[in-house]
Amino acid sequence: MLPNPIKRFVDAFSKLPSIGPRQATRLAFYIAGLGKNRIKEIADAVAGLADLTTCARCFRTHVGGGKLCAICADPTRDKSTIAIVEKETDLLSLEKAKKFNGWYFLMGELRKTGELEPEQKMRLTSLKEFIQKELRGKAQEIILAISPTVYGDLNAALLKKELEPLAEKITRLGRGIPTGGEIEFADEETLGNALDNRS
Amino acid sequence: MLPNPIKRFVDAFSKLPSIGPRQATRLAFYIAGLGKNRIKEIADAVAGLADLTTCARCFRTHVGGGKLCAICADPTRDKSTIAIVEKETDLLSLEKAKKFNGWYFLMGELRKTGELEPEQKMRLTSLKEFIQKELRGKAQEIILAISPTVYGDLNAALLKKELEPLAEKITRLGRGIPTGGEIEFADEETLGNALDNRS
Repeated sequence: MLPNPIKRFVDAFSKLPSIGPRQATRLAFYIAGLGKNRIKEIADAVAGLADLTTCARCFRTHVGGGKLCAICADPTRDKSTIAIVEKETDLLSLEKAKKFNGWYFLMGELRKTGELEPEQKMRLTSLKEFIQKELRGKAQEIILAISPTVYGDLNAALLKKELEPLAEKITRLGRGIPTGGEIEFADEETLGNALDNRS
Repeated sequence: MLPNPIKRFVDAFSKLPSIGPRQATRLAFYIAGLGKNRIKEIADAVAGLADLTTCARCFRTHVGGGKLCAICADPTRDKSTIAIVEKETDLLSLEKAKKFNGWYFLMGELRKTGELEPEQKMRLTSLKEFIQKELRGKAQEIILAISPTVYGDLNAALLKKELEPLAEKITRLGRGIPTGGEIEFADEETLGNALDNRS
């Protein structure tokens, strides 16, 4: 019953994470109604993503001819301090805090089963090789910058076991009450951590 | 901080309904990681939406050279019975029930303020003109096939006022317990309607 171009759009978009067939169908009709110019703009915005490449060191998405991204190519960043993040957006949030002068390593979203996907195993091997070759087998610090959720903790434990022999210390981000947050509304777990980490 | 192609994608997609900047950013990075072939496939699926046109009578999205969509061009469908729907997906759901032999008229999603948007006023005028010219001023039945929500009821009342002089009768879809639904879990309002509409 759906017109063919709509069907094709729904097929392509409902395969993407967090978009279901219902949302894809509504989007398709909405975009179809925007007129040829806006449709071309949106199609070009998708096609433009093909200009991006993956950094050969940290697996971050970046633009431009170089093999390394801007952070990895920056000689002023400390190569022996590595923050392991799951998502590009996590990296961007941390970078905005302007507190970190090491480099990031992108794992991709970690599973809830405490197992690495083949691509993630490959990335971890590549990280280990970098530490072996460029840091003589020991990073100064590896920060497991993974969200402090139940699954995050599980995955952090897994990565810690893998990387323990390759770093002087392995840390995680501090836990406590978020800035602007009220004690009244913080859960026990958070308050417990805030007490442990008081300064 | 975001690479340019990502920024462009986020700008284009976060303007669409039900996609926020966060979801758009995640989507952008996800699609960027799919590789050139899949990216082209997705971009083409968007571009393909430009092949669709709007039916000159019912404002439905359809493909093909004709001015009228398949339903409006079908001589066996009863021109004097009109189901007013908000969304294309509502139309498709009703059509799947295979119970309706009239034609549909697409209003687009109605606002929660009980006011029509300029585009919707224009469509309503076009519907009134059709009834004046093709049905000698009176449709046999106009079904306000709008969801029975608080806002749906408000908008149905508004449309009823506008269309009352142009139809023998104006109806809404029956209300009651959905097929397969259990009495135990139906709310009072639904049960009240089910009692009123018992057959």
